[in-house]
Amino acid sequence: MPEKLFSYEQLYAFTNLVFLKIGCSEKDAATATRTLLSADLRGIDSHGIARLMGYVRLWEAGRVNTKPDCKIIHETPSTAVVDGDKGLGLVVAPFAMQIAIEKAAEVGTGWVSVQNSNHFGIAAHHAMMALEHTMIGMAMTNASPLVAPTFSTDRMLGTNPICVAVPAGDEPAFVADMATTTAANGKLEILQRKNEKAPEGWVQNKDGHSTTDPHILKSGGALLPLGSDPEHGSHKGYALGGIVDIFSALLSGANYAPWVPPFPAYVPMPARQPGKGIGHFLGAMRIDAFRPAAEFKSAMDDWINGFRNAKSKDADKKVLIPGDPERIAENERMNKGIPLLTSVIDDLNSLAEKIEVSKLTTESL
Amino acid sequence: MPEKLFSYEQLYAFTNLVFLKIGCSEKDAATATRTLLSADLRGIDSHGIARLMGYVRLWEAGRVNTKPDCKIIHETPSTAVVDGDKGLGLVVAPFAMQIAIEKAAEVGTGWVSVQNSNHFGIAAHHAMMALEHTMIGMAMTNASPLVAPTFSTDRMLGTNPICVAVPAGDEPAFVADMATTTAANGKLEILQRKNEKAPEGWVQNKDGHSTTDPHILKSGGALLPLGSDPEHGSHKGYALGGIVDIFSALLSGANYAPWVPPFPAYVPMPARQPGKGIGHFLGAMRIDAFRPAAEFKSAMDDWINGFRNAKSKDADKKVLIPGDPERIAENERMNKGIPLLTSVIDDLNSLAEKIEVSKLTTESL
Repeated sequence: MPEKLFSYEQLYAFTNLVFLKIGCSEKDAATATRTLLSADLRGIDSHGIARLMGYVRLWEAGRVNTKPDCKIIHETPSTAVVDGDKGLGLVVAPFAMQIAIEKAAEVGTGWVSVQNSNHFGIAAHHAMMALEHTMIGMAMTNASPLVAPTFSTDRMLGTNPICVAVPAGDEPAFVADMATTTAANGKLEILQRKNEKAPEGWVQNKDGHSTTDPHILKSGGALLPLGSDPEHGSHKGYALGGIVDIFSALLSGANYAPWVPPFPAYVPMPARQPGKGIGHFLGAMRIDAFRPAAEFKSAMDDWINGFRNAKSKDADKKVLIPGDPERIAENERMNKGIPLLTSVIDDLNSLAEKIEVSKLTTESL
Repeated sequence: MPEKLFSYEQLYAFTNLVFLKIGCSEKDAATATRTLLSADLRGIDSHGIARLMGYVRLWEAGRVNTKPDCKIIHETPSTAVVDGDKGLGLVVAPFAMQIAIEKAAEVGTGWVSVQNSNHFGIAAHHAMMALEHTMIGMAMTNASPLVAPTFSTDRMLGTNPICVAVPAGDEPAFVADMATTTAANGKLEILQRKNEKAPEGWVQNKDGHSTTDPHILKSGGALLPLGSDPEHGSHKGYALGGIVDIFSALLSGANYAPWVPPFPAYVPMPARQPGKGIGHFLGAMRIDAFRPAAEFKSAMDDWINGFRNAKSKDADKKVLIPGDPERIAENERMNKGIPLLTSVIDDLNSLAEKIEVSKLTTESL
């Protein structure tokens, strides 16, 4: 697929302009831009600028409030519930994570459940906010229902990702960011674009039978929970997705299970809305609330080196630490540029035309 | 395989006597017995009385202290690190969970990392202690290395289970208790006893190739992380196992990764010991630190009913809620008795003879 390279600054300028144009304050536009583009930098192309149009459509549909009054509606020393006031999740989640970090600074840990929000981009961006404070960060969110629980044909859960970011010493941080499905929806979208088959165990058809058709979600199919089938532990992936839903939405009062509002604005809202918007869960644990940070960091370095030096079964596939591929992508893309498919560039420029902002610099790098 | 039924009271009396005989106080013997037998009641036969001999062997080897002075060695309002003083994990983990619950009562949540402990039985027993306080409970532990990370042939992690227990209203609690591997080691042990093959994707041989031999761990093979292979997300299972190790051992100062002491006393200790004993992580979150408990419980009931009523692909396989099979087993076994294999009964009675306590009542139910 043909693509062009853009600098981070080029994409930043364009994205920031779009968020300002739809009514975000300067501060919120900057936050939303940084959050969104962190996905492009880290190589998670499905969650970055390619989705900008989707956020604008949610705003057009009146489902996103670009001037939200995010606030704490309940709290204790180590917990809070935040009402995102229909804001962009890209802005609401960093607001909530900041509260978690402040609570952790005070009492050791902080845990914030969020209602009335929208899609928050990649979980890693929020969890990683904790790292510079020498804290472990956690982020999770529920999402539109695409996943069938074990034994079912109904789509009852989103891909409900979990991220845990752990600081190390000399080594880079451990950053595990994973959908609780066998394959993230973004991986399926790549196969759809390439018109390639999906491996067995990623999706099922409307009757619950295994299929390799990556388009099957359009005809009542579903993504499968991590584990794929009962014999390989799909009940565990289902349980993990359920835990994310409970922490994000049941603790906060957001919509849950099949009643989570869909990201595509053209998909009708669920008939029933048991809560408000979508839900997130953010957490921070201060390392020295457990153990002197220097001791912990040196143990983390030792842990990481232990795994890096584990024997690999295949000379060309070293054992990786969670977060390695994304960090390598970020270094490379920050230096050499971020590739965008020409179809994505065309989409962004038709968006620019429609909302009357300058097009993405036509000269790529 | 031939088996006999015993009442909970019969197994309780026998187990309690064994723990008293090896030096536990009356209080600790009762706690250890309740913890151990909760596995037999819940149908997790691999973690119950069948392991009693294993705990006694650790005591004989000087690796378990039956008169531990468990104490907090560091704390903040929402966190603590507990030194288990080489005690039975069956006793140390409930001690730590009680601290998590007390902290949650004070400041909303409580999080306790434990060093210098031993095998703690089933995670669910500890996590479920939170339920009667209208709290969410969490429990995890690291364990002897049996699992190869993605791309590796080395056994670097234990089956490192995670349990999350969530109270509901009229419905029974949601209790997800899962090894972070495709299949728990206990399931492999069942196949070994029956001399049946394992499904593809559970284990690999010493060269990292897929195999169906359930005995392969004896010749350098390894269990596979949840997801089985990279195409099906084994890097996610590996990351989850890593998170459990970090929370349980790196935060507390216990041994980690391949240096976790083995449960079988005949397996030599690892050459290197970067920490003390094995590690656990226990957590409690007060529901009303987020939202009025009645509101939450009614939303949980709605969530649970939504999943119970999801369409199943197969008329005879209803969609389950995590914890359903174990709760059903517990009701049945409490009423009708707990089945033990005759080989397990023989083991227990040779233990009884050796340490001079009364044998398990020979008359089964």
